[in-house]
Amino acid sequence: MSSPPPDLDLIVREIAAEMRLRTDRGEAAKYIPELAGVDVNQFGLAVIDREGVVHKGGDADVPFSIQSISKVFTLTLALGLVGDRLWKRVGREPSGDPFNSIVQLEHERGIPRNPFINAGAIAVTDALLSGHQPKETLGEILRFLHFVAEDPSIRMDEAVAASEKRTGFRNFALANYMKSFGVLENPVELALGVYFHHCSIAMSCIQLAMAGRYLAYGGRNPTTGLSVISAERARRINALMLTCGHYDGSGEFAYRVGLPGKSGVGGGILAVAPGRASIAVWAPGLDRWGNSHLGRIALEHLAKRTGWSIFG
Amino acid sequence: MSSPPPDLDLIVREIAAEMRLRTDRGEAAKYIPELAGVDVNQFGLAVIDREGVVHKGGDADVPFSIQSISKVFTLTLALGLVGDRLWKRVGREPSGDPFNSIVQLEHERGIPRNPFINAGAIAVTDALLSGHQPKETLGEILRFLHFVAEDPSIRMDEAVAASEKRTGFRNFALANYMKSFGVLENPVELALGVYFHHCSIAMSCIQLAMAGRYLAYGGRNPTTGLSVISAERARRINALMLTCGHYDGSGEFAYRVGLPGKSGVGGGILAVAPGRASIAVWAPGLDRWGNSHLGRIALEHLAKRTGWSIFG
Amino acid sequence: MSSPPPDLDLIVREIAAEMRLRTDRGEAAKYIPELAGVDVNQFGLAVIDREGVVHKGGDADVPFSIQSISKVFTLTLALGLVGDRLWKRVGREPSGDPFNSIVQLEHERGIPRNPFINAGAIAVTDALLSGHQPKETLGEILRFLHFVAEDPSIRMDEAVAASEKRTGFRNFALANYMKSFGVLENPVELALGVYFHHCSIAMSCIQLAMAGRYLAYGGRNPTTGLSVISAERARRINALMLTCGHYDGSGEFAYRVGLPGKSGVGGGILAVAPGRASIAVWAPGLDRWGNSHLGRIALEHLAKRTGWSIFG
Amino acid sequence: MSSPPPDLDLIVREIAAEMRLRTDRGEAAKYIPELAGVDVNQFGLAVIDREGVVHKGGDADVPFSIQSISKVFTLTLALGLVGDRLWKRVGREPSGDPFNSIVQLEHERGIPRNPFINAGAIAVTDALLSGHQPKETLGEILRFLHFVAEDPSIRMDEAVAASEKRTGFRNFALANYMKSFGVLENPVELALGVYFHHCSIAMSCIQLAMAGRYLAYGGRNPTTGLSVISAERARRINALMLTCGHYDGSGEFAYRVGLPGKSGVGGGILAVAPGRASIAVWAPGLDRWGNSHLGRIALEHLAKRTGWSIFG
Repeated sequence: MSSPPPDLDLIVREIAAEMRLRTDRGEAAKYIPELAGVDVNQFGLAVIDREGVVHKGGDADVPFSIQSISKVFTLTLALGLVGDRLWKRVGREPSGDPFNSIVQLEHERGIPRNPFINAGAIAVTDALLSGHQPKETLGEILRFLHFVAEDPSIRMDEAVAASEKRTGFRNFALANYMKSFGVLENPVELALGVYFHHCSIAMSCIQLAMAGRYLAYGGRNPTTGLSVISAERARRINALMLTCGHYDGSGEFAYRVGLPGKSGVGGGILAVAPGRASIAVWAPGLDRWGNSHLGRIALEHLAKRTGWSIFG
Repeated sequence: MSSPPPDLDLIVREIAAEMRLRTDRGEAAKYIPELAGVDVNQFGLAVIDREGVVHKGGDADVPFSIQSISKVFTLTLALGLVGDRLWKRVGREPSGDPFNSIVQLEHERGIPRNPFINAGAIAVTDALLSGHQPKETLGEILRFLHFVAEDPSIRMDEAVAASEKRTGFRNFALANYMKSFGVLENPVELALGVYFHHCSIAMSCIQLAMAGRYLAYGGRNPTTGLSVISAERARRINALMLTCGHYDGSGEFAYRVGLPGKSGVGGGILAVAPGRASIAVWAPGLDRWGNSHLGRIALEHLAKRTGWSIFG
Repeated sequence: MSSPPPDLDLIVREIAAEMRLRTDRGEAAKYIPELAGVDVNQFGLAVIDREGVVHKGGDADVPFSIQSISKVFTLTLALGLVGDRLWKRVGREPSGDPFNSIVQLEHERGIPRNPFINAGAIAVTDALLSGHQPKETLGEILRFLHFVAEDPSIRMDEAVAASEKRTGFRNFALANYMKSFGVLENPVELALGVYFHHCSIAMSCIQLAMAGRYLAYGGRNPTTGLSVISAERARRINALMLTCGHYDGSGEFAYRVGLPGKSGVGGGILAVAPGRASIAVWAPGLDRWGNSHLGRIALEHLAKRTGWSIFG
Repeated sequence: MSSPPPDLDLIVREIAAEMRLRTDRGEAAKYIPELAGVDVNQFGLAVIDREGVVHKGGDADVPFSIQSISKVFTLTLALGLVGDRLWKRVGREPSGDPFNSIVQLEHERGIPRNPFINAGAIAVTDALLSGHQPKETLGEILRFLHFVAEDPSIRMDEAVAASEKRTGFRNFALANYMKSFGVLENPVELALGVYFHHCSIAMSCIQLAMAGRYLAYGGRNPTTGLSVISAERARRINALMLTCGHYDGSGEFAYRVGLPGKSGVGGGILAVAPGRASIAVWAPGLDRWGNSHLGRIALEHLAKRTGWSIFG
């Protein structure tokens, strides 16, 4: 179980090569031009092991729109800011509904099921904003990413954020709906402004895997040993990623891959092999649940070859 | 991470002692007299480690009605019988609904969300029955339990099965509903007859932890080395237990305990620390989701003290 | 408004002739062979005016399976038996769901929305049965029809009842579901036995229009003056037919036809022009809501030519 | 049936006197201060007969916020503007859900069930706005009311409209949700601006009964004989009021009162006795469905004493 995989570098490169050859790539997200125009033939994979060695394959240093993966980082920050009070306005259960469903909100008085569906992430963003100026909060989010990824070049993509805002009627509906139940504290426009912006952050697989290390290594940077969050909090965020990280395909991801992970419609997935690796994969084509099609398959291969599944 | 817990025997006994003292015990299931009459002051815990040593505390050898925990074993058997064809009639996603909800069935044409909600377990039982006589199938289930628990004394409780049948209108509704979509192949009465009987199986914590070893140790009996199922299948059943094993409280269980587990309304929980331990706990009082209240808390303590969470 | 239509006999014959020529006939119900085999080219219309004159067109004397139209008569009888206590277990609101939906039952603790969806009619049948033998209750229903239609030849079709029972898994699901909430008092099998039998009653348009006179004429037989039910109760049953008589197509029927009516999947519709006429139409082909396609169109024509709409 | 009631003036005054004495008044709507502050002891009733005689009782000339009753008038105007194309974006079926439910919209791809639930009325307002300036559309609505009520003093209440806008998060959610499906053509803010304003119109019972005459008399002003809309359209709007005019209490209203009607949370109800009377009642206290409690009871008494029920 705990024996290290024979040659991680080789495995990563082989998977990248295999994924390059596959023709079942899915389709890129269509709702904004910035995503619709992305070439689905790209594929990147980065794995950072306990010693901090980066194993990479394919387009691992090409930045892409991390979209919903940002929800992991805003959740981390919001828990740091308001602690367990956060759970008064967002639940911790899988939703059994698509990412943008509003039905569940009506049945449960405006409390979103978990922090990784859109409604939940908007509620988390609202908690993080709590009375500050959007700019300050966005600055805080970026500084956190610069710190955990050890890379100050990470930034938001204003064109993506503007497109999201222009077409995000469903998110406006979700936010106003929660506001009607008093679940949001800030003006809807401000909370959504921050939400659209943090979803627009662009990162490469390498940057993303660097950023995810604190979740893989008990809340710490494994190289410097510096603590980002407590080990318990890291475990709990991992649990949420496992049960809720892939919308209505979360059970499928757990069943096939067996690692906590969070996907974004940009085609990225951040995955965590606790104690072993921080992993990021990117393939822009999506499956029917809105998760990266080849990204999931690549992670399934990786977990199989390394024996990293958390389920035995 | 992989260091063995200092003294498992002590931990188990301490947890049992702590649980004895707690006054927040929840209430026993009320819908049949055989469960309603159980003394909620009982508590049992059994942990079987890699070497096959049994660590026990409290009423670990008192038999109780395993109820829905039996769904793990019938799932194992049905996968052995029909393989991945099983997934044509039952899904692998958390349901986001209570254990006996029928709403989801209407929205998804009679296909239950996962094998651990009632509808899903009935569909699995129907697959296992496939054309055989109920008695044969029940015999097969018992023989499997005798084999994995290494204990031929395990049996069904006819009084419980009869009570379940007499009051099980909701299950009759679910089964007839699936039958209307062609999801069940056998007559409703036969499938439910087997279902009510396997839910009525009585086991102690020790027997249950013995039976669960194949899930904890890559599909094998860790003592004899004999294979029960493949390692991949064991992993996948563990993944299903993690995402769906506690009905609408599955996310909460993953968040707090961090181990794959399956609960029953009799107050039992079977949990698995992959590579480390097979665990069974029993406390008859239930929480609002129908899961054992103190059972969950005991497992939370156990996972914390041992560091066994699969999430880091 | 109250001027009599110029020549009702001519209107009825013209409509029958027009309907004969139409090629958009819909499809007959498919779920049992006895209905699936009915020739969709048949069409019948019968209108009985205040003076008791029968105006008929097409196949007005061919018997067909009245199916859900029987729910009007069992509702009448159940109200006579238990009065307003009936409304403790069935509502009076349109359902907004298909005729056999179970979702609403889960959200409203087993209380069906109204007496004309399947669940509601089963609850009404259960109230009517209340402790009697099914045979007695079925005898009572038939005697009532013989009385109001002045025709002792009306009977049930055992082959249809047997087919309904053999394939009626959805109705078994609904009944068991209500039973689980305590909404049904009798054993599920007995209530459904009576339900399937009264749905199997065969009547011609003429017999049905005769039977419906008490609803059109303030609760009385307009020829003999004998009272069947109070005028207020007749009004209220008419109101229920208007709002709930055509399942999820009730609004459409009110909008286009403007008369209280009740449809059955056998292709029949009983309609009422209060103070003016009792009407029955039959065309076996159904629309997407399960209501007679040409039946509804024929009634739309009839209401337009006679000015009988209750809406002005 | 068509005999005139003995003394309408007396009946109206007696009902007003009876309602004055009742202590079960319900509570006024609470969500904006302008409604919450209204004295629930007020009661008004106005009935305008075929000859144009106004029969009034109680506070029949006190203006109140007509709220959702305005939806009848905007529906009339929108049908005049776009005709049956309107039904491409709004249905004609009772909803079976509360007035502000969003669940139905998700299940039916953003198409509201009918024009009288909030979502439906917003879609109708959007159709009416179609490309014009909000001010022009609001002017058109007011001019229509001035014309049909023969009273140019009717106006909007800016304070009410401003309060609605400030607290109308649920309506913003509904509108954005429909916009996400392309059901709304205009910017959400513009459509809602017009919606909030037409709901804020203040009218007395007398003004409202005057305005409703075209629905009672085949689309015409019965005094001048001038046509407002076709007789068929008047009938159809009446049918929609009957099946959908009281939200989730529409069946109850039809069952008890038996007249087409439309309620508003300001406590008003416009009701129509086709060919006989246009009726407006006002009592600010609401029942559990959000309809005027005493208003409904007063109309039940009126229909009983006059024999005006459309159901016989």
